[in-house]
Amino acid sequence: MRIHNFNPGPSALPLAAKERAQREMLDIEGTGISILEHSHRERTYEAIHREAIALLRSYLQVPETHEIIFMQGGGRMQFAFVPLNMLKPGQSADYVITGAWAKQAYEEAQRVSALIGASVRKAGSTEVDGRFNRIPRNEELVLDPNAAYVHITTNNTIFGTQWHWLPETNAPLVADASSDIGTRSMDWKRFGLVYAGAQKNLGPAGVTVVIARKDWMREGRSDIPQIFQYRAYAESESLLNTPPVFAIYMVRNTVQELLAWGGLSAIEKESEEKARMIYDVIDSFPDFYRAPVEKESRSRVNIVFRLPTEELEKRFLSQAKERGFIGLKGHRSVGGIRASLYAALRKESAEALADFMEKFAKGH
Amino acid sequence: MRIHNFNPGPSALPLAAKERAQREMLDIEGTGISILEHSHRERTYEAIHREAIALLRSYLQVPETHEIIFMQGGGRMQFAFVPLNMLKPGQSADYVITGAWAKQAYEEAQRVSALIGASVRKAGSTEVDGRFNRIPRNEELVLDPNAAYVHITTNNTIFGTQWHWLPETNAPLVADASSDIGTRSMDWKRFGLVYAGAQKNLGPAGVTVVIARKDWMREGRSDIPQIFQYRAYAESESLLNTPPVFAIYMVRNTVQELLAWGGLSAIEKESEEKARMIYDVIDSFPDFYRAPVEKESRSRVNIVFRLPTEELEKRFLSQAKERGFIGLKGHRSVGGIRASLYAALRKESAEALADFMEKFAKGH
Repeated sequence: MRIHNFNPGPSALPLAAKERAQREMLDIEGTGISILEHSHRERTYEAIHREAIALLRSYLQVPETHEIIFMQGGGRMQFAFVPLNMLKPGQSADYVITGAWAKQAYEEAQRVSALIGASVRKAGSTEVDGRFNRIPRNEELVLDPNAAYVHITTNNTIFGTQWHWLPETNAPLVADASSDIGTRSMDWKRFGLVYAGAQKNLGPAGVTVVIARKDWMREGRSDIPQIFQYRAYAESESLLNTPPVFAIYMVRNTVQELLAWGGLSAIEKESEEKARMIYDVIDSFPDFYRAPVEKESRSRVNIVFRLPTEELEKRFLSQAKERGFIGLKGHRSVGGIRASLYAALRKESAEALADFMEKFAKGH
Repeated sequence: MRIHNFNPGPSALPLAAKERAQREMLDIEGTGISILEHSHRERTYEAIHREAIALLRSYLQVPETHEIIFMQGGGRMQFAFVPLNMLKPGQSADYVITGAWAKQAYEEAQRVSALIGASVRKAGSTEVDGRFNRIPRNEELVLDPNAAYVHITTNNTIFGTQWHWLPETNAPLVADASSDIGTRSMDWKRFGLVYAGAQKNLGPAGVTVVIARKDWMREGRSDIPQIFQYRAYAESESLLNTPPVFAIYMVRNTVQELLAWGGLSAIEKESEEKARMIYDVIDSFPDFYRAPVEKESRSRVNIVFRLPTEELEKRFLSQAKERGFIGLKGHRSVGGIRASLYAALRKESAEALADFMEKFAKGH
């Protein structure tokens, strides 16, 4: 049975990327040893490391104004690293709260501010009764013109909302783009720093991609621990200490394949099509499928919906699983159904799911 | 040609651990997807995660007084996390400086102290002209009886020295054991916290094993970012956020194999034998091989030596490589030769190297 992997992350990887890893697991490039056993200071790994950065630059269309670095600890470690690096004592940063992770980013920044004598502000929130069903309009935001930066979460994995515009501000934008990086083009000149755990769109768990404007990053604090400093990773080409070798190797394999599939413009187009197929079914059966998210804020990568009853949701999930659709359960904090359509999920999978959803609605 | 992998880290892994990864790369346990594509919140991965912790507890003989957690960022991230968690404003911690990494641990702790209003002391150092050729005697240490903890580096990878005794103190010991964990038994009741990047003895790069006394760890600060807090990892069984799935999976595969090889007592015995074989050749040709390290401080896992000239060292390395011995170049900061004999390096490899060294000495 073909598995259609809708996992919210870690999630589907290109077959060729995995096949290559399998082929090279015992002996990479005739060296007689595994990629896992190579020193990170030797030629074999260094070439892969540099290639991964170059392919990311090409795929994500990152201009030379920005540096690409590899870190560890996931998006959540960045919740702490961003204010530690980019917020100086006495300064303040703005956070827009559009979901659970955005809120956690804000709370970590609060802990950092208390430690270093800075402050953070809520510049806006769309929370209603613990839920977030939309992205705020620009006029709802109360932005501090002197903010060190404005933090947003480009896509909210749990609630299925996504920014389709950007806050109007002169401050550098900082974005957690873990769930939609690599599925759409970005206006890089607006972003001071973008971070993303690789495990949704760019590779496996275990490496975080950080893309930062070089001049801004250099203004970051240099009196925090060196291993927290973006500049130290940039200066060492992300070889400050032993990097997560295999995760970076898999990012290389994955992004290489995404480029072979036509690159970002093709993936972006496919992303729109995949999402449209699912939303079309939802909208065709308004009495059966209920999408809580406001249309203008709908996410293309995490499609969240409910069925008339929890009983039907259980039946939906169980029949889906029998047909090879996995990972469709909504986040444990909100329930319901969630289909995650990341970069490496092929259109056929979205098509098959749309077909199943249609049949299920008609049959119930 | 059989490769004998003396890499200083990442380094050799058991063949069976890699073969299993190869076998399961496209489909693990009949799920139809790769271990890389499984959600970390689902049964397949969770079982591996728990098994990895249980196997580590068994292999390293960790008592229930101590918690085992998985983190990211390598030993170097711990240089910052240890003082952030375990040093309160106004307190002081002792650091014993026995090598380059010990020094960096001290320097990161200095940066943390300056940030939070605590302090760190050098309780001893064996540095002479930028080199460290021995571990200090207990009577050389000037320990603070009120220290929050005493930090040591159990084995110094670059200089090839190793602690074969422990400082006499009532303060909890904190140890960077990256290079010798899993190669010898430890007196756990002496240690408040031990950390180790997995990539030398326990698995691949990308995961850090932290073993901490539960009661002491709970005294750690709770007002630092949550993602820095040991207690938060402990409470979530290291599933606070997406863990480095594949690295932990490989730790499971690796430690399972080390247990199959006879467990820690067998590996410790083998470790002594491997080291003895190499040191015996060095000591048999004192005019040819020169070991800079004082005998009582010799490391069993990183054996550092020089040849009469740099020219001969080059020839040694090049002939060694032709025979399949890789990773023997000394650290770029000190030059010379270094043979790293970590847990998964088989005795035959040490035997073969000893044989080559003997022939090389006789032939030159």
